[in-house]
Amino acid sequence: MTKDFAVGIDIGGTNTKFGIVDRKGNILEQGRMRTDAHDNAEEFIEELYKNLWPLIANHGGTDKFKGIGMGAPNGNIYTGTIEYAPNLKWKGIIPMADMVEKKFGLPARLTNDANAAAMGEMMYGVAKGMKHFITITLGTGVGSGIVIDGKIVVGHDGFAGELGHVIVRHGGRLHKGTSAYGSLEAYASATGVRETAIEFLTAEPDAPSLLRNYTIDELTSETVYNCAIQGDAIANRIFEFTGEILGEALANFVMFSSPEAIVLFGGLTKAGDLLLKPTVQAMEANLIQVFKNKVKVIFSDLKEADAAILGASALVWETDH
Amino acid sequence: MTKDFAVGIDIGGTNTKFGIVDRKGNILEQGRMRTDAHDNAEEFIEELYKNLWPLIANHGGTDKFKGIGMGAPNGNIYTGTIEYAPNLKWKGIIPMADMVEKKFGLPARLTNDANAAAMGEMMYGVAKGMKHFITITLGTGVGSGIVIDGKIVVGHDGFAGELGHVIVRHGGRLHKGTSAYGSLEAYASATGVRETAIEFLTAEPDAPSLLRNYTIDELTSETVYNCAIQGDAIANRIFEFTGEILGEALANFVMFSSPEAIVLFGGLTKAGDLLLKPTVQAMEANLIQVFKNKVKVIFSDLKEADAAILGASALVWETDH
Repeated sequence: MTKDFAVGIDIGGTNTKFGIVDRKGNILEQGRMRTDAHDNAEEFIEELYKNLWPLIANHGGTDKFKGIGMGAPNGNIYTGTIEYAPNLKWKGIIPMADMVEKKFGLPARLTNDANAAAMGEMMYGVAKGMKHFITITLGTGVGSGIVIDGKIVVGHDGFAGELGHVIVRHGGRLHKGTSAYGSLEAYASATGVRETAIEFLTAEPDAPSLLRNYTIDELTSETVYNCAIQGDAIANRIFEFTGEILGEALANFVMFSSPEAIVLFGGLTKAGDLLLKPTVQAMEANLIQVFKNKVKVIFSDLKEADAAILGASALVWETDH
Repeated sequence: MTKDFAVGIDIGGTNTKFGIVDRKGNILEQGRMRTDAHDNAEEFIEELYKNLWPLIANHGGTDKFKGIGMGAPNGNIYTGTIEYAPNLKWKGIIPMADMVEKKFGLPARLTNDANAAAMGEMMYGVAKGMKHFITITLGTGVGSGIVIDGKIVVGHDGFAGELGHVIVRHGGRLHKGTSAYGSLEAYASATGVRETAIEFLTAEPDAPSLLRNYTIDELTSETVYNCAIQGDAIANRIFEFTGEILGEALANFVMFSSPEAIVLFGGLTKAGDLLLKPTVQAMEANLIQVFKNKVKVIFSDLKEADAAILGASALVWETDH
């Protein structure tokens, strides 16, 4: 029987999304469940089975499926394990691919969530046909997937591509999760934008700003965006500041792997040109001559959940050759 | 007739070195000439021919040679051209591989000089057998060669791996060649060490130091080293400062490609542990957990000229498969 379908699963800190995908990259059916409602991986897999099995059955059962692909924080493609993921409740090393394979009776592969998104972009998104690009996810945190010569860079241990943790401001802002000072994630994430807002509003207590109408809990990258498009000066400066730091980091990445494009992805990209313009300007300003005006910085056009599900499912088709 | 030999040529800003190399990586005969004595590439090639042809003749003539491999600043492996190299007198785009091929009647390939050195390390040096490593050349400038999955990273345009130009100190020291502020090369090169020495001595005019016995022209990374091993406090702090910045940059590189090792190379490595200890310490301090205590930082054991000649010659053997 032909194996027409794959399952793509995106395991996030809060939610897990899954879908049935055909060989053309159509998501035929999808669902979601809470990740964080389960204190251990065994319970999580029981719940996943309850939710996902009916979808597999709807599409002809396991005989019609080539396998299951998964993306997860700190996922290791070599071992299929999730290792010490700070955003998950499950501690230590979880042999997720093995556990899923046993439960569903289908071959399962697992990779880093950001790498899965990069794979989705390469197969079905704006990076289709590109052999050299970098995907940067600007969400609660900053993730990255690096593609060189058409292959995801995983490094000697499977953990390459942690660009959210590069240091961009020596001695800069403390990242509470990693205890690093001045890492990219401390600035160019939704969390970072919120912190920048609080810093700017506190540093200039007399400067008027629409942002002062919000409680501290309401200060999010979204409220900053809403104020910025209304012309609020501080809100606009927050995006300029964020873009300046992000652009400088992107320049460093370009001088490493000389990609054709950088694909930006995730919640913060909703800011559009407010973020893109200062980012590109800072990137160009920090590139040496040979790289200037060559690298496209583009937003992903895949829906967020879709890219991750598609990218994870792509792991399954990869084993075709 | 079997093609037993290759020519390896290392074109540097001041000198050009060349050698006859066999398939086992033995340099059978070598020579050198000035690069900077020739205002244009045509003259350079005439002189190269005069110097190199007798060596080829000594080893059986072109019939015994598989080809010529070259490393050069801003060398592009895709096109065989040298493009806008700031350290060479020849301006614009030089079709060096084509010119050499015509002159010698042998197939010629050309790549970036730092990539040639990385290739030499992979085939004949401390990185033998490694599939993921980064070579950093700490000379007058800072060069780099990146190896992922056993292949030199060249990027979409052939210029990847310009790690000397990444920004490590936002708004930091001006690099006179590139006009960038705070790039790695401005600190972790022989030129950078000299600048740090001048900065430190000027900032603390009353602090005693053996370095004050030298004229400003005599202040080089070598004199700093000589004073440091005699216990001079400022000289020691200069290497600590250099290592701190280098180590932070290395941490960023590790979080990009997760290499097994970083191979340091070039004049500055003569400082040994004076440089290595603070470098490793700073690298480890800036890595996130998953990379800590995993990455070897090692000095090359190839003679500098040899690595470049061997690496360039390796380009020739590469075409075997």
